[in-house]
Amino acid sequence: MPAPITPDAIAAANAPHEADLKRDYATLGERLSRRGIDIDAVKAKIAAFGVAVPSWGVGTGGTRFARFPGPGEPRGIFDKLDDCAMIHRLTAATPTVSLHIPWDRADPADLKAKAGSLGLAFDAMNSNTFSDAPGQPLSYKFGSLSHTDKAVRAQAVEHNLDCIEIGRAIGSTALTVWIGDGSNFPGQSHFSKALDRYLDAMREVYAGLPEGWRLFTEHKMYEPAFYSTVVQDWGTNYLIASELGPKAFCLVDLGHHAPNVNIEMIVARLIRFGKLGGFHFNDSRYGDDDLDAGSVDPYRLFLVFNELIDAELAGTDGFAPAHMLDQSHNVTDPIESLMASAMEVQRACACALLVDRAALAGFQEANDALMATTTLKTAFRTDVEPILAMARLEKGAAIDPLAAYRASGYRAKVAAERPAASAGGGGIV
Amino acid sequence: MPAPITPDAIAAANAPHEADLKRDYATLGERLSRRGIDIDAVKAKIAAFGVAVPSWGVGTGGTRFARFPGPGEPRGIFDKLDDCAMIHRLTAATPTVSLHIPWDRADPADLKAKAGSLGLAFDAMNSNTFSDAPGQPLSYKFGSLSHTDKAVRAQAVEHNLDCIEIGRAIGSTALTVWIGDGSNFPGQSHFSKALDRYLDAMREVYAGLPEGWRLFTEHKMYEPAFYSTVVQDWGTNYLIASELGPKAFCLVDLGHHAPNVNIEMIVARLIRFGKLGGFHFNDSRYGDDDLDAGSVDPYRLFLVFNELIDAELAGTDGFAPAHMLDQSHNVTDPIESLMASAMEVQRACACALLVDRAALAGFQEANDALMATTTLKTAFRTDVEPILAMARLEKGAAIDPLAAYRASGYRAKVAAERPAASAGGGGIV
Amino acid sequence: MPAPITPDAIAAANAPHEADLKRDYATLGERLSRRGIDIDAVKAKIAAFGVAVPSWGVGTGGTRFARFPGPGEPRGIFDKLDDCAMIHRLTAATPTVSLHIPWDRADPADLKAKAGSLGLAFDAMNSNTFSDAPGQPLSYKFGSLSHTDKAVRAQAVEHNLDCIEIGRAIGSTALTVWIGDGSNFPGQSHFSKALDRYLDAMREVYAGLPEGWRLFTEHKMYEPAFYSTVVQDWGTNYLIASELGPKAFCLVDLGHHAPNVNIEMIVARLIRFGKLGGFHFNDSRYGDDDLDAGSVDPYRLFLVFNELIDAELAGTDGFAPAHMLDQSHNVTDPIESLMASAMEVQRACACALLVDRAALAGFQEANDALMATTTLKTAFRTDVEPILAMARLEKGAAIDPLAAYRASGYRAKVAAERPAASAGGGGIV
Amino acid sequence: MPAPITPDAIAAANAPHEADLKRDYATLGERLSRRGIDIDAVKAKIAAFGVAVPSWGVGTGGTRFARFPGPGEPRGIFDKLDDCAMIHRLTAATPTVSLHIPWDRADPADLKAKAGSLGLAFDAMNSNTFSDAPGQPLSYKFGSLSHTDKAVRAQAVEHNLDCIEIGRAIGSTALTVWIGDGSNFPGQSHFSKALDRYLDAMREVYAGLPEGWRLFTEHKMYEPAFYSTVVQDWGTNYLIASELGPKAFCLVDLGHHAPNVNIEMIVARLIRFGKLGGFHFNDSRYGDDDLDAGSVDPYRLFLVFNELIDAELAGTDGFAPAHMLDQSHNVTDPIESLMASAMEVQRACACALLVDRAALAGFQEANDALMATTTLKTAFRTDVEPILAMARLEKGAAIDPLAAYRASGYRAKVAAERPAASAGGGGIV
Repeated sequence: MPAPITPDAIAAANAPHEADLKRDYATLGERLSRRGIDIDAVKAKIAAFGVAVPSWGVGTGGTRFARFPGPGEPRGIFDKLDDCAMIHRLTAATPTVSLHIPWDRADPADLKAKAGSLGLAFDAMNSNTFSDAPGQPLSYKFGSLSHTDKAVRAQAVEHNLDCIEIGRAIGSTALTVWIGDGSNFPGQSHFSKALDRYLDAMREVYAGLPEGWRLFTEHKMYEPAFYSTVVQDWGTNYLIASELGPKAFCLVDLGHHAPNVNIEMIVARLIRFGKLGGFHFNDSRYGDDDLDAGSVDPYRLFLVFNELIDAELAGTDGFAPAHMLDQSHNVTDPIESLMASAMEVQRACACALLVDRAALAGFQEANDALMATTTLKTAFRTDVEPILAMARLEKGAAIDPLAAYRASGYRAKVAAERPAASAGGGGIV
Repeated sequence: MPAPITPDAIAAANAPHEADLKRDYATLGERLSRRGIDIDAVKAKIAAFGVAVPSWGVGTGGTRFARFPGPGEPRGIFDKLDDCAMIHRLTAATPTVSLHIPWDRADPADLKAKAGSLGLAFDAMNSNTFSDAPGQPLSYKFGSLSHTDKAVRAQAVEHNLDCIEIGRAIGSTALTVWIGDGSNFPGQSHFSKALDRYLDAMREVYAGLPEGWRLFTEHKMYEPAFYSTVVQDWGTNYLIASELGPKAFCLVDLGHHAPNVNIEMIVARLIRFGKLGGFHFNDSRYGDDDLDAGSVDPYRLFLVFNELIDAELAGTDGFAPAHMLDQSHNVTDPIESLMASAMEVQRACACALLVDRAALAGFQEANDALMATTTLKTAFRTDVEPILAMARLEKGAAIDPLAAYRASGYRAKVAAERPAASAGGGGIV
Repeated sequence: MPAPITPDAIAAANAPHEADLKRDYATLGERLSRRGIDIDAVKAKIAAFGVAVPSWGVGTGGTRFARFPGPGEPRGIFDKLDDCAMIHRLTAATPTVSLHIPWDRADPADLKAKAGSLGLAFDAMNSNTFSDAPGQPLSYKFGSLSHTDKAVRAQAVEHNLDCIEIGRAIGSTALTVWIGDGSNFPGQSHFSKALDRYLDAMREVYAGLPEGWRLFTEHKMYEPAFYSTVVQDWGTNYLIASELGPKAFCLVDLGHHAPNVNIEMIVARLIRFGKLGGFHFNDSRYGDDDLDAGSVDPYRLFLVFNELIDAELAGTDGFAPAHMLDQSHNVTDPIESLMASAMEVQRACACALLVDRAALAGFQEANDALMATTTLKTAFRTDVEPILAMARLEKGAAIDPLAAYRASGYRAKVAAERPAASAGGGGIV
Repeated sequence: MPAPITPDAIAAANAPHEADLKRDYATLGERLSRRGIDIDAVKAKIAAFGVAVPSWGVGTGGTRFARFPGPGEPRGIFDKLDDCAMIHRLTAATPTVSLHIPWDRADPADLKAKAGSLGLAFDAMNSNTFSDAPGQPLSYKFGSLSHTDKAVRAQAVEHNLDCIEIGRAIGSTALTVWIGDGSNFPGQSHFSKALDRYLDAMREVYAGLPEGWRLFTEHKMYEPAFYSTVVQDWGTNYLIASELGPKAFCLVDLGHHAPNVNIEMIVARLIRFGKLGGFHFNDSRYGDDDLDAGSVDPYRLFLVFNELIDAELAGTDGFAPAHMLDQSHNVTDPIESLMASAMEVQRACACALLVDRAALAGFQEANDALMATTTLKTAFRTDVEPILAMARLEKGAAIDPLAAYRASGYRAKVAAERPAASAGGGGIV
């Protein structure tokens, strides 16, 4: 098993960059101090900020047309954990991993031991009732938790309870439920009856939540269903979380909305009504593209964090949203994309921390739209890379994680151990 | 004052078409009877179906670029009522008129008398806090019911209470509130504070509702605000109606949603959670285009009615959605567009009444997607024109309202009395 | 091998419906004659109208999340041809099949013999350079005809020339080229260089076209590439066809456009500039949903045919667009969906044939928008089912193909012979 | 007449900021030098970069719902030129003004003298055939250059020739033609005939172009027409420019495209085929929102400039796109918005100049998607404000134009001289 990169190797990679980083950090600190900002305080918050990596994210993704695997694809959850450890060693930004059942099913004790040995912990559990596992008695072709057949719903409930069980054993405290249930034709499904069936099933899942757990339901406008989706938007998601109870919250995946929709406003609404559970970070231009976070519209990511920091500073009661990446890496090395994305999320967070909120509030109150928006833009366009890099350096991670990763030869090493995966034809074949 | 068309004139216009209509009605009845449908029962429901006309709809609309008035533009509410009466005489489908204050402000007794003399009644009142009326003390440039300045909010509340007062005097029993409040720049407005201010103000309006009244709040994704809107979607609208109380309901304007959104599903959700108040019918391809109902996507209009008929037949408690047209007629004679649109709404309703709901429920239960959707399509593609025309004929209206209207010379007559309106440059000048 | 349904079986299925059909055809004929339309002439045009079935369409489709096969999935091209024959026997609307290489690779002589025995012919050939075939030397992960590596482009060119070769042997006269080439990140690809490489490669393909062949290039806004696509819209597609030469034409897939785009106008533009090659018919609400033609927005399909009939009647030089279905059947029996879709395409064509074009032209010239659009709506809402059914009856096909198909037991028969396919996890696993 | 701000006043406003700016410029210069970039060379390019201000932009805009004017609205073109001069004095970024006829009609000699006295020149002329001017013989209600009536087309042609005449007299060398022609209903307009009429009319306009002039045609997806638009996208626009001849080019307004469309790719396509004429810069989230450039999606603006700088560095023959702002300032002081927007355009340009193009080309060639996109992001996230500010300082403009403008009291001064404008009700009244 290829060891993740050592502290010494990271230190060696950092050495040539330290002097420049210190100078850049100092001059940025000076500029920020003129704006009344303490750079060390921002750095401390970034150092404490983590985003979960999805176990499936370290494998190459695909589309319905094709999947083109890269070298060294992980063969199972233990390989995946190795890859996740590499990401965290280099970025110090991803302390937890989110599992997907049944893809990551293994002996919980082994999972816990392996993660512990790598310095990782487990984030929310993810159930899968959107595809049929080999040997599964009943098919989810026509739905799962909202299926018209009670037996299928029961099977899906049971699977979710099973995910909770595994999660409990490995130290997770949350279950994320995303279903593909919906319809492809007008009339195929009765909208209200389907939702009622879903609610009934979810009440059973909710009842199985251990003490201290949270349940995250995730909305999505479409895909895999192309005419209607049972949990299609935040409105339905909110109503579901309300119906289920105080442990139920809404998960926002940035790619799951209609074109042009103002997502940061949805975030604000869920905060206002106490039901924001967390995020699946990624980026999109067309649909649920699952592109790397911040790669297409970095300002949108910043605006989302602007709402989060605002809520945090306002002392919103019980405000503790979960942060997770959820991306499909089709043309990059997944480890590289996840590192870059984790840093982009941190960058958005850091910029949002720079917003002069007293000034912003004043401009908002005075309807000074130009100065209000300039206040945000000033924070956004500040190049906070020295803050992120210094936080990494001080935590023993890499100043330039991508370069350090490439220099480490990790991908070649795992490729030598892991057999080549064959290209897939996607779902349409 | 040009009298609306007389019963005799209508009868004369109908005479040449009666024989054909009767034959078509009979053969359609025979075809429907094979499908187990009683054509007379459908006709009776259509005869009882009405949709309100918005007073502003009888004037030519415009865009921010220009307005091109036609001949005989109504000079005020009394001219508008004459035009509305013409529509109802010819279609027997629009028994009520919805007023907009301050545009239609007049002595309530005069309004009531005039409407009564024309056989019309009044539908929901509409307040206007999205533009500044001449002489208005405070401006709505930066918002109305959600404005940061308490005095502006109070003025907006007062205006709504005034609308209720007028409505009470003329027999209306509902108030529709649509605001343009929002922002054009990220940061301009604090999303949650703006919503809270709106809710506070609306609670005062709600408190002023007379016994038996309903309050309709209307969501809209954007325009006139282009970055964020306070009541931006059905989720926020639902939460507003819930916060306000049992007399508050959500109004759905078909053009106020994001691209690709499944509107019929939103209708179903609002029905399911008891908050569907009613509709502003129109059609759109790009945004809030305010095109004639059913002119761009007639199947969508049918699918909305499919939900309404389903809810009605299911005996949904207290289900009584309001129906109103809300269109901008930029290139047609508004009277013609409103007649055609009222009939399109009836057509969608009639087709939805033809759906074999027992069969549909069976196909849904069995996940027979193809037969389920075919069941809807079979109803939709039935040409129900003979049913609509026969319902009109029997109520003394026109078999072919457009032809009868053109033959009547009404437009030329009012053009002779009403001075020509000058073209406008729209809002951008 | 299960024989497709026999003429006798079809006749038996038709018998109970013939009397009603004849009466309905007669009464519709009478109504149409009042509008100056000869129903038999329309029927004759419909009888002569065919749409190609894609060989891959008879298998169950999937998404990147999952694929849920049904019983009796075809094992290869010969099973697929059997299924295609069933569709054509019952609908008499799909005389040709479009092959996809390498999926349908077989001995051309065998292909030709099999198709001939089933009464089928071959439509356009489809090449596949969007996924890697087993054993393929070079990968298309980063593109094919536009790849930065000349060797990959050469391989893709060679594959297209091979498709032409097979097509020539089996009687096809067209090649359809759709590529997935594009990028997932800003900067990943140089837009102009990529297009130039594509053009260079396509010139080699074009040079290989036999006498009498046409080349169809197909644009698509996105997917599988999610930031940019080389042939992203009709504008680029037009320029490609122009650069290549007179045998090159643009293919329009109805699901390959940006939200809200007016597709019928694109059709009109391509007609106007002599580059409309043909269609991939399907329907969509969100993206390239590949839903059944006419299932979501039947009026749009009609409006597309309105342009085609207009061009045909105008005697547009060399106007002969190819018609093909291209759908993904995820929740229905593919044979049923293809039959229903072929009939929906015929229905749109039939309705478009009913448009009173002289009246329409007059209203357009006079800017009588309401009567112009009413002219289209009158044609659209005519229930032309009796025309389609009578055309089928007279050609020995089924009055009600779906019912006849279900009654035939074909699916159960092939399920007994063809081994069950296993569910797939889609491209994301 | 209030004098625009004096050099002394600007110098006084700059004094307190000079030391910080010099330090920031120096430290940025040091960081850039590590990346191999000469900061002074970038500054020189920015200093030479200008964007035209539209004369109508200095007045408060509006929507169809309302217009809320601010204090000191310009009363006519001479007031507008004063406001434009203020913008240029403070930013040194807007040396030219683009006129709109008939709104800005005046004696050409007076226009030229006034502009000359303010240090301004004239950019492209803009014709207006989308609204009816008072006293205009024929209406554009149903179109202008594509109208079915030859007389209306002739009037529109004549107006464009008149615009050229005025432009020639004042030193302009380009005409921009944007029309609102289109339709609101399926069937209202014959797509091809309308385009042919437009082409015929435009050929007459083209024939009237003086030596050395360019003609810019502008596409727009929709609004004011809501079903179809004659020049609806870049594809049609390209074909128009091709049909007209070598002096005709396409103008790209960033807000005139379908949702999700990749605009930077359209820019690349028009560059590739030699027909990119220039830009109307603004930003949008929903439609043609006409928001301030870079205010909603600053990365998109950068990506557009990335294409422009790439083309410029590639030495694209005759590449000289025109740059103009085209925005509607509904809630801000228009002078402030135009200053901020001109600087945002410069910022995007400056960031694009920082792209390491050799590295980018290498990553593109090697399909190293992550490093390619990181190369762009590295340039984008560089805070180039010191470069922009230093360029301003050295040209005698303000380090902080917004602060200097507010300190100058200009708005209050003009408000005292210019009578208050009354609020408008927008086009819908």
